[in-house]
Amino acid sequence: MLFTYLHLAASDELTRALAESGAACVAYETVETDNHALPLLAPMSEIAGRLAAQAGAYFLEKPLGGHGLLLGGVPGVAPGRVLVIGGGIVGYNAAVIALGLGANVTILERSIDRMRHLDEVLSGRVSLVMSSTLQIEESIVEADVVIGAVLIPGAVAPKLVTREMVTAMKDGAVLCDVAIDQGGCAETSHPTTHSEPVYVVDGVTHYCVANMPGAVPITSTKALTNVTLPYVEAIADHGLAEAVALDPALARGVNVLDGRITYEAVADAHGLDFHPLQDVLPLSPV
Amino acid sequence: MLFTYLHLAASDELTRALAESGAACVAYETVETDNHALPLLAPMSEIAGRLAAQAGAYFLEKPLGGHGLLLGGVPGVAPGRVLVIGGGIVGYNAAVIALGLGANVTILERSIDRMRHLDEVLSGRVSLVMSSTLQIEESIVEADVVIGAVLIPGAVAPKLVTREMVTAMKDGAVLCDVAIDQGGCAETSHPTTHSEPVYVVDGVTHYCVANMPGAVPITSTKALTNVTLPYVEAIADHGLAEAVALDPALARGVNVLDGRITYEAVADAHGLDFHPLQDVLPLSPV
Amino acid sequence: MLFTYLHLAASDELTRALAESGAACVAYETVETDNHALPLLAPMSEIAGRLAAQAGAYFLEKPLGGHGLLLGGVPGVAPGRVLVIGGGIVGYNAAVIALGLGANVTILERSIDRMRHLDEVLSGRVSLVMSSTLQIEESIVEADVVIGAVLIPGAVAPKLVTREMVTAMKDGAVLCDVAIDQGGCAETSHPTTHSEPVYVVDGVTHYCVANMPGAVPITSTKALTNVTLPYVEAIADHGLAEAVALDPALARGVNVLDGRITYEAVADAHGLDFHPLQDVLPLSPV
Amino acid sequence: MLFTYLHLAASDELTRALAESGAACVAYETVETDNHALPLLAPMSEIAGRLAAQAGAYFLEKPLGGHGLLLGGVPGVAPGRVLVIGGGIVGYNAAVIALGLGANVTILERSIDRMRHLDEVLSGRVSLVMSSTLQIEESIVEADVVIGAVLIPGAVAPKLVTREMVTAMKDGAVLCDVAIDQGGCAETSHPTTHSEPVYVVDGVTHYCVANMPGAVPITSTKALTNVTLPYVEAIADHGLAEAVALDPALARGVNVLDGRITYEAVADAHGLDFHPLQDVLPLSPV
Amino acid sequence: MLFTYLHLAASDELTRALAESGAACVAYETVETDNHALPLLAPMSEIAGRLAAQAGAYFLEKPLGGHGLLLGGVPGVAPGRVLVIGGGIVGYNAAVIALGLGANVTILERSIDRMRHLDEVLSGRVSLVMSSTLQIEESIVEADVVIGAVLIPGAVAPKLVTREMVTAMKDGAVLCDVAIDQGGCAETSHPTTHSEPVYVVDGVTHYCVANMPGAVPITSTKALTNVTLPYVEAIADHGLAEAVALDPALARGVNVLDGRITYEAVADAHGLDFHPLQDVLPLSPV
Amino acid sequence: MLFTYLHLAASDELTRALAESGAACVAYETVETDNHALPLLAPMSEIAGRLAAQAGAYFLEKPLGGHGLLLGGVPGVAPGRVLVIGGGIVGYNAAVIALGLGANVTILERSIDRMRHLDEVLSGRVSLVMSSTLQIEESIVEADVVIGAVLIPGAVAPKLVTREMVTAMKDGAVLCDVAIDQGGCAETSHPTTHSEPVYVVDGVTHYCVANMPGAVPITSTKALTNVTLPYVEAIADHGLAEAVALDPALARGVNVLDGRITYEAVADAHGLDFHPLQDVLPLSPV
Repeated sequence: MLFTYLHLAASDELTRALAESGAACVAYETVETDNHALPLLAPMSEIAGRLAAQAGAYFLEKPLGGHGLLLGGVPGVAPGRVLVIGGGIVGYNAAVIALGLGANVTILERSIDRMRHLDEVLSGRVSLVMSSTLQIEESIVEADVVIGAVLIPGAVAPKLVTREMVTAMKDGAVLCDVAIDQGGCAETSHPTTHSEPVYVVDGVTHYCVANMPGAVPITSTKALTNVTLPYVEAIADHGLAEAVALDPALARGVNVLDGRITYEAVADAHGLDFHPLQDVLPLSPV
Repeated sequence: MLFTYLHLAASDELTRALAESGAACVAYETVETDNHALPLLAPMSEIAGRLAAQAGAYFLEKPLGGHGLLLGGVPGVAPGRVLVIGGGIVGYNAAVIALGLGANVTILERSIDRMRHLDEVLSGRVSLVMSSTLQIEESIVEADVVIGAVLIPGAVAPKLVTREMVTAMKDGAVLCDVAIDQGGCAETSHPTTHSEPVYVVDGVTHYCVANMPGAVPITSTKALTNVTLPYVEAIADHGLAEAVALDPALARGVNVLDGRITYEAVADAHGLDFHPLQDVLPLSPV
Repeated sequence: MLFTYLHLAASDELTRALAESGAACVAYETVETDNHALPLLAPMSEIAGRLAAQAGAYFLEKPLGGHGLLLGGVPGVAPGRVLVIGGGIVGYNAAVIALGLGANVTILERSIDRMRHLDEVLSGRVSLVMSSTLQIEESIVEADVVIGAVLIPGAVAPKLVTREMVTAMKDGAVLCDVAIDQGGCAETSHPTTHSEPVYVVDGVTHYCVANMPGAVPITSTKALTNVTLPYVEAIADHGLAEAVALDPALARGVNVLDGRITYEAVADAHGLDFHPLQDVLPLSPV
Repeated sequence: MLFTYLHLAASDELTRALAESGAACVAYETVETDNHALPLLAPMSEIAGRLAAQAGAYFLEKPLGGHGLLLGGVPGVAPGRVLVIGGGIVGYNAAVIALGLGANVTILERSIDRMRHLDEVLSGRVSLVMSSTLQIEESIVEADVVIGAVLIPGAVAPKLVTREMVTAMKDGAVLCDVAIDQGGCAETSHPTTHSEPVYVVDGVTHYCVANMPGAVPITSTKALTNVTLPYVEAIADHGLAEAVALDPALARGVNVLDGRITYEAVADAHGLDFHPLQDVLPLSPV
Repeated sequence: MLFTYLHLAASDELTRALAESGAACVAYETVETDNHALPLLAPMSEIAGRLAAQAGAYFLEKPLGGHGLLLGGVPGVAPGRVLVIGGGIVGYNAAVIALGLGANVTILERSIDRMRHLDEVLSGRVSLVMSSTLQIEESIVEADVVIGAVLIPGAVAPKLVTREMVTAMKDGAVLCDVAIDQGGCAETSHPTTHSEPVYVVDGVTHYCVANMPGAVPITSTKALTNVTLPYVEAIADHGLAEAVALDPALARGVNVLDGRITYEAVADAHGLDFHPLQDVLPLSPV
Repeated sequence: MLFTYLHLAASDELTRALAESGAACVAYETVETDNHALPLLAPMSEIAGRLAAQAGAYFLEKPLGGHGLLLGGVPGVAPGRVLVIGGGIVGYNAAVIALGLGANVTILERSIDRMRHLDEVLSGRVSLVMSSTLQIEESIVEADVVIGAVLIPGAVAPKLVTREMVTAMKDGAVLCDVAIDQGGCAETSHPTTHSEPVYVVDGVTHYCVANMPGAVPITSTKALTNVTLPYVEAIADHGLAEAVALDPALARGVNVLDGRITYEAVADAHGLDFHPLQDVLPLSPV
C-alpha cells in the first residue's frame, strides 16, 4: 500500500505503473473532509505561507537583486508594503509573518466572511480589501512584496497577475508565487528550485520555488506526521477497507485500487476508466 | 493673586490692567520645568490630541461636509489614512485614537529619538517618517484626515501646511489644526468655535476650534486640577515668595508682580519694562 | 428586475405598485443563508456599529449637549464607560471602536457562545455580561454612552431600554439606538436624520439616525457592492430562475414575481395572497 | 566586611554590636544612585508586586475566607476589580499581573508623568487616576482586591487607607499591603508571616506578609544577585575605599565603618554620633 | 422535577432512589447539543481552567511546598514554564491566565484544527505542540507547573501522566489535575478538598481539588445560572414533555422519568433496564 | 571638508593622507552626545539588528546549510529559539523581528534598567536574563539562532562566544555576529560579504557580513540622511567653527583639522600627536 503525495494527474506513466502494480494507492492531496478541507495539504500551506513572507523580505536585499529595502523600515523611514493575494491558509500565514517583520500589509480576498474572521483575529492590523482585477492592478504598483496565495484545491491556479501588472510593479520588487505547485497565479511565473530560487522579469524578482516546505524538513516532517499519523493508525488498526468505510475523507484519498483508477480527475486526465471506490471496495460509503 | 491661563502677550490692555491692579499674576502657560516641559499645558495637549482624532473621523461624514468615509473601513473596504504632523504630546494622543478608530496612521516628526520612543510604545503600528516640506507634500495628498500637531511652546506655530498643499488634498478630507491656539500650522487656518467648528477651503474641511478642551469640561477640569493643585498647595503653604524660591518652574510662571512685568516675552510684546523676578522678589533663584 | 433594499412590509402602496408592475423584485434585506445569516445586511451593521461608537464619543461634548467628557480620559482622569446592549455584528463593531477610543466597555449579550467568541477575539479587554432586564437597569446608570445594538432580523426590535431606565441615566449621557431602523430598542427612541441627528429626553442625548451608513457613502457603497456583486453576476450569468435554483439564499430574497407576492411576511403585512416561490418559479428549490 | 540588608535604624543592639565589631557594614537598602533610585531594593519590589496580585486572586477564594470570586470572571460574568494604590515599581508589577489575570484594574498615583508612562507601556488597558484621600474612599468600596503599593524609600509608609475605608470595603474583599515592611499603608495592617499570611478585619482579608519575596527564593536570589554582584566585584577588585570613591551609590550604602556610624539616619535613630563617610574614609567623594 | 448535576453513574443507591421517587430527573452534565457540546459543563470548565493556573502559581511558593519560583520571573530572571496537557476549554482558559502571569506556556493537544484556532486567538504567544506520550515525557521534565486538562465528556480521563513521568519532574513543581472529577489524568492523582488542596508525591505538589469551581461561588453561580436559566424557562413555559420535544439537547439530559432510566450509560452502570426517552415520553424527537 | 564614516584608527595611510590634505575631516562614528549616545551610528544598528533576525531565519533553511527549521513553527510544531546576546539597539531590533517571525526569544543583557525597559515595551513577550559566561553557555546549546549584539562603542567587541560554545551548539544552527564590524563577539567569527555571506564552523552557519546595512541602501540612506542632515545644515549655516562651538556632539566628530589629529584615539592608534580641538579651533567648547 502506498500512502503519500502522488499527484497522479500530472503523470500518465506513474499512474499506469501504479495501476499495474496492484498496490492500493492513497494520495495525501486528495484526502478531503466533507466540508472540502484538505487536512494533509493544510500544514504545507501554513509552512509555505510563512516561508514566502521570509523570502519576500530576504530578496528585497540589494545584493540579491532587490531594490534594497528593509521591509519593516526603522523609526524615520516608512516600512515597505506587502500585498497578499488570497486570504486562505497560505495568505493568513504570510500576512502574520509580514506583520511581524513590520511591513504594511494588505490582503485581497473574495470572501467577506473570511475577511471578517481575519479582521477579528488580526485585530485590525491589516487592510482587508475585496479582490478584483481592478483592485490587484491598483494595489500591485505600490507593493514591495507580492505574495500570490490563491490556491484552488485540485485545480490550476487562476492567472490573476498578468504580465502587464508585473511590468507595472516597482523595479526590484519581489513576487513570491506560492501557487506555483498548481501552475502559479502570475503569467510570468515558472517553477524554480531551492538551489536557484529566483529569476527576474521586467525588474521584478520572482520567487517561485516548487515544494517550498522542502526547505524546512524538520518542521515540515513533524507537521505532516501530525496530520497523517491518525490515518496511518486507522489503516493499521482496521485495514484499508474498513478504514475508508469509517472515514469518507480517507476514502476520497484512494486513487488506485486493485489495478483500477478510483479517483475521477486522475482517470479523466489520462483517458482511463473511472471506477467509483464503492464499486471496487463495496464497504466504502462514498 | 491670580493663578490661571493669562496669555498676556496677546492683550496689551489686560497686561496693563493687571500691572495696575497690583495683583501677583502667575500664568499657567509659562510655568516651565528645567527641562523645558510645560506641566500645566500638557494635559490640555493630551485632550486636544484625542479630540482632534475624534473630530477628524466625525467630519468625514458626508452630511457634515466630508467625503463620506468611515475612517476604520470594514472588512473588504480599506481604512482611511490619517497623517499626523508632529509627534509630541498632541500627535501621540491623536495617533493613539486614530489607531483605535482603525485608521492607517502616519506620524511625521523631526526627532529620531522621539520616533524611536513612539515606535516602542506603539509596537510598530504606525509609520514613523522624518518630517520635511517634501515629505508633507507627498503624504498630504493621500490623507483623509490631517492633524496639525506642531506646537512650539510659547511661539507662533510654523506654517508647515501651505495653501498649495491644501489645494492638493482630497476633496472632502479633513484638516484639524490643533496648533490654532498658536496661530495654526496651515496657511488656510483661522480660529473657529465649538458652535461653528468647521469651514471649507478648496474642498477641505478645516476644524480649527480654539480651546478644544473646552468641549469636555469634566475631563479638562479634572486633568487641569490634577496638575495645578500641587502648585496651589505650595503657594498656600509657603506663600508665593517662598514657593517660587523652592520651585523654579513656578517662578517662571510669574508674569506680573507688584505692578511690574516679570516675564520678558510679555514685556517685549507691549513695549513695557522687563523686571527679572529675582529683582522684584529677592528670594527667587531664577 | 429590481434588486435593492425594498422593505415592502412597511409600505402597502409600494408593494401593490410593484406587484402591478410585473417586475421581479428581489429584496436585499431578505436574502438569507441556510444558517439564517443576512449577507446583504451585515456590512451595513458593521458600518452602523462603528459609526455609533464615534457618534457616542462626539455627542458627549458639552457644546453638543453632552456632559462634557472625553471618552478615553487621559492619564490621571478615568475613561468613560460604554454599555453595548447586544453582542452581534453591530455590538462587536461598536465595542471595537469604543475600546479604540480608550473607553471602559461592557457588552451585554444573551448567547454564551457568542460571548466566548468575543472574549477570545477581544483578548479579554471588555466585560462580557449576560443580558437581562435587571442587568441593563444596573449597568445603564453607570454608562456615559449606551449603544442599543439589539437587532432581530426582520422583526421589530424589543424595547429593552425603558423610559424609567433612561430617566435613571446620567445627565448628559448619550444613547445611540442603532436598532432604530427596526423601531428602536429604547422606549424613548424615534428616528432622526443626519441633518438633525439628536434630541434630548430626560437629559439624555438620543442619537437615533435612521440609515446611519448613509453618512459614509464611499465606505457603504463599496461594502455593499462587495456583497451584492456576486448575486448580480449570478443573475446576469444564469437568469433569475436558474440563479435562485442554484442559491436558496437568493431565492429567499424574491419578494414579488409575476405580480404575485412570494415572501410570506410581506403578503401577511398587507393582507395579500402569499405564493411560495416554487409555485411561481418551478425551478426554485426553496 | 558585611554587605547585606541591615535595617539598622530598627535595632539599637545590632547597630552597637556592629560598631563594636569593627566590621565595615554596607547596607543593601541604603545603596542609592544620584537620582534617588535604590537599585538593591527594586528587584524585591518587582517580586513583591507580582506576588501581591497572585495572593489577591488566591485569597478571594471562599474556602480561604474571600467572598468567592474569580478575579478574571468568565464570558457572561464580569471580572473583579483591582485597586492599586501607588504606581511605582510595586504598583506597576501588581497591575501587570492583575491585568493578566483578567481583572479590571485601576491605579491611583500622584505623579502625572509616571501615569503618562504607565499609559504608554500598558497601552491604555488600566484606568489611571490621580490619587487623593477622596479618590481612595470612592474607589475602595468597589474593589475586590486592594493592593497597597505606596512606598517612600527609607520612610514609614503613609496611612492612606483608614479604618473607616476598610470598614466600607466589600465583605470578603482582600487587602494586600505590600508596604508592610515599612509599617503598612493601611491603619488595620500588621505584619504576618508566610505560615499565617492573612487575618480578617471587618470582613476584609488582610494579606500583610513581611518579606514577601522570601516565598520565591529561586527568583529572589537570582534577582538580588543580578544587582549585587557588580558591587561585590567592585569591592573585590578595588577594595572598599576605592570602590566607594568610584561609585557614590555604594558610598551611600556604608552604614558602619571603623566603629563609627557613617549613615546619618542610623546615627539619629540611636542617638549615636554621625561621622560622614568622607571623614572616616578620606577617598570617598560623598 | 429535579434539574441539577446528578452524576448517577457513580451511585447505584441514588439512581434507584430517584427511580423510585417518580421524579423527572434531568442531569446538567448530560444535556448535550447535536454537535456534542455540553453547555452546562462548559462554564465550570472555564472556571476550573482559570483557577488551575492561579493555583499552580500559588503552590510554587516555597512556604507552600513549591520550589520557590515566581511564575512570571522579573527582568533578569527567566519566567517559569507551564505545560498544559489538552487544549480544550479548560486548557485554553488555563493557558490564558498562565500567559497573563508571565509564564512561558506550552499546550499539548491532538487536534490540529483546535491548535490552529488557539494560534489565531492567542496571536502566537504559546507553543502549540502535537500531544503524544513521547512529547509529554519530553516536555514534563522542563515544566514548573503542569495542568492536566484532558477531559473526555462522560468518560474516565486517560492516565496520560504516568508515575514515572511524575518522578522525572522537577522537585517542587506543581501538578494541577483538573480532570480529577473524572478520575484524573495522572496516575498519582487522587481527589483533594479545598480545605486540604495539595499533597506531595515524589517531590511534586499535586493540586487535585474536586469541584474546583466551588471555591468561587459568586462567579460559579452566576456562570451556571446564565446557562441553565434558558432551560428552566423552557420547562416552565412548555412543561418538560414539550420542552424536550423542542430541544434535543435538553432531551439528552433526562436520566430518569416515570421510574424508568432513560439514559443508557446510567442504566448500564447499574445493570438496570434502559428505556429510550421517546418510548417513555412519545413527544420526544430523540 | 569631509563628513562621513572615516574609521581612521584602522588605517594609518588614510589618516596621514587626510592630515596632509588639509581637509577638515569629521567622522560620523565619533559624533557623540553628552550622554554617550552615537546618533550617527544608531540607525545603522537598528537596521543591522532587524536584518540579523531575517538572515537568521533564512539561513536555517536546509538548502542554505541550516538544519531545516521554520523559525516560527506552525500549530502542532514548536517554534525555534532565538538567543540575542546584548539588549541594546541592535538586540532590541533583532528581538522585535524574531518575535514577529514567531520565535521563542531570549535576550541576555547586563543592565537591569535596560531589561526593565525592554520588559515594559515588549509586554513580557521575551525572556530577559542577566548575561554571564555561564548563562551564555547554558542558553546557547538550546538556540537555533544566536544573534551577537554586543557592541561597545569605539572598542573591540568582547569575545563572549568561545570556540567551545560554538562546538556545543546544535548542528545547523545559525550564528549572526552583528558585532563583526568591531571584530565580532564570537571567537569563530571573521568578516564576510553580501556576495558570500556565510561559512560553517563545527556545523554552525556563521553569518558575519560586515556593513550589513549596505544590503538595504534605500532604507539605510534615508535613515542616515535623517540623522546627518541637521549636522550638515548646521555646518552650512554657521561654518564648522561655529557649528562645533554650538554643538559638542559635532565637535567630538572632528578627527582631523588643519593637518592635525584632533581625536585622541586616532592619534594614539598611529603614534601621531594629538591636538585637542579647542587648541586648533579656539571657539570650540570641548
